[in-house]
Amino acid sequence: MRRSLVNDPDDLVVEALEGLALAHPTLVRYDAEHGFVARATPARDKVGLVSGGGSGHEPLHAGFVGHGMLDVAVPGAVFASPTALQLYDATRAADAGRGVLHIVKNYTGDVINFTVARELADEDDDIATEVVLVDDDLATEADDDDPDAPGRRGTAAVVAVEKICGAAAEEGADLGTLAELGRRVAGRARSMAFAIEAGTHPGDSRPAFDLEADEVELGVGIHGERGRSRVPFGPADELVARLVDPLLEALRPARGSGVIAIVNGLGSTYPLELRAAARAVHRGVTGRGVGVDRFLVGSYVTSLDMHGVSVTLLPSDDELLRLWDAPVRTPALTW
Amino acid sequence: MRRSLVNDPDDLVVEALEGLALAHPTLVRYDAEHGFVARATPARDKVGLVSGGGSGHEPLHAGFVGHGMLDVAVPGAVFASPTALQLYDATRAADAGRGVLHIVKNYTGDVINFTVARELADEDDDIATEVVLVDDDLATEADDDDPDAPGRRGTAAVVAVEKICGAAAEEGADLGTLAELGRRVAGRARSMAFAIEAGTHPGDSRPAFDLEADEVELGVGIHGERGRSRVPFGPADELVARLVDPLLEALRPARGSGVIAIVNGLGSTYPLELRAAARAVHRGVTGRGVGVDRFLVGSYVTSLDMHGVSVTLLPSDDELLRLWDAPVRTPALTW
Repeated sequence: MRRSLVNDPDDLVVEALEGLALAHPTLVRYDAEHGFVARATPARDKVGLVSGGGSGHEPLHAGFVGHGMLDVAVPGAVFASPTALQLYDATRAADAGRGVLHIVKNYTGDVINFTVARELADEDDDIATEVVLVDDDLATEADDDDPDAPGRRGTAAVVAVEKICGAAAEEGADLGTLAELGRRVAGRARSMAFAIEAGTHPGDSRPAFDLEADEVELGVGIHGERGRSRVPFGPADELVARLVDPLLEALRPARGSGVIAIVNGLGSTYPLELRAAARAVHRGVTGRGVGVDRFLVGSYVTSLDMHGVSVTLLPSDDELLRLWDAPVRTPALTW
Repeated sequence: MRRSLVNDPDDLVVEALEGLALAHPTLVRYDAEHGFVARATPARDKVGLVSGGGSGHEPLHAGFVGHGMLDVAVPGAVFASPTALQLYDATRAADAGRGVLHIVKNYTGDVINFTVARELADEDDDIATEVVLVDDDLATEADDDDPDAPGRRGTAAVVAVEKICGAAAEEGADLGTLAELGRRVAGRARSMAFAIEAGTHPGDSRPAFDLEADEVELGVGIHGERGRSRVPFGPADELVARLVDPLLEALRPARGSGVIAIVNGLGSTYPLELRAAARAVHRGVTGRGVGVDRFLVGSYVTSLDMHGVSVTLLPSDDELLRLWDAPVRTPALTW
């Protein structure tokens, strides 16, 4: 039996957005009428960055609105895409005359609704837009060349895309440059996750799927999508190796090169667990002769109260590190 | 059945501390030999600030080591005090010639071991020390004047003490001034928590206590100590009111005055829940004509994977707000 701390589950997203804005009044504002979260003080003379998607993954995306990352974030209902109209309104709000970049996780609903929003912004408002599609989840890599396959899901690499493009946008990069940069980051980054317990939809009393005591869901998605396989439960280091090994296998970073690593809790993974997992990731990567140039450890792209971890590896270079290190000031990420 | 993401549970704390240091190499270092976490670059010419206590409450305290907060944090095993020797070594490490302030949550083991450490530092090293005892948990307010009662437990107000004293220490305040300031903050702040699910010790498969589907543990402690009472489960706003109402009753802030509020997740409370709870706290406080001058919302003082919320209210004034707003750069708190 799982219980949620909610009033009416249908009101949870809106109440949480109100709470976010009350907690960070100097950083963000919640536009309840149009259904988005924007910077408290709009930026001028830069490309606007918009992201969005279903709720239930907090602090993504609204937690990344602020200087150095997003201009506007657009939340849908739990695990449901925001509407095209929300995204269109957000695009207009984010435009400061230099165009708007959409950062979109690869899910059918999100892709369609962002596309419609760009069409509307182009036709009705003459706003130039570009899109970066984030599709980093190695668990959904297609085994063949099926042209109808939905492709890899978008997960925690979106944080790297938002951070790096956000920094470049503050520096004054133009829309085309930002789109190219974002695609380069998204194209390089890969992620993989496991869950030892599924998340529970607010108001439900059972998790999205059940696991036996000796099972772990490997390759799980952030909406409770089932994984690629079930593997035996075991020590944390063994479970983490089941993420790191295939990532290194897919990315094949050269010895002596480095990565930006994100070790991400999926909701109810607590800091002792997450930090110990980070240690295991660090050992796994450096054990192959690859450096961890930057290391982000925390719960940034969650799945309600899912208990598990995702690992994202992004092969780095001087430009990406410089943009990663640039100042950022948002509710969930500040340095 | 609950499962933890661990290797050997006995190694979890050390592995997590290694992970913390790997994640934040520019901010902190883990001294495995002496069992503490210190700033990566020691501060000079300021009073040293040391806190510590049992693990399982992360990011407390090691997550608050860095510019503007602690100099050294000393973790014990899960829910167990660090040893007097660890605390003595930490005190020596934190001393930059202007003395050391101990910030101690009110638990018997912590109080004793910090006291021994101060005696050793005084006798063997001639280090001047002072202590601020944090005892904010309203749930353990004694009903009478029993001189042997342990007094109120120390909980999330310790974050405010560390932040505010940390800022004053960076400004150059001397040891006596800091002790007085810390006691003023600790003396004013009160907290109260509830849990809808207890935490589970790493390696155990059952939570610290069981709740029926219609029950909530009100006044719960951060070590799984049972609360003052069990109250009916209900909508989040009603449960939050059971924290805010007695806090306002105890503190009696004047209409038109303001508070610093901390809405703290206890471990597996996820952001949608916590932000919605923050909204309820804001409404509860402002509904009494009291302003929320500053608002910290996140999981800062946890109890493993406990599912619940604590609320801390600290009546503010210009000096406290100025010190609260001062720059801070630690793994868990940066602005």
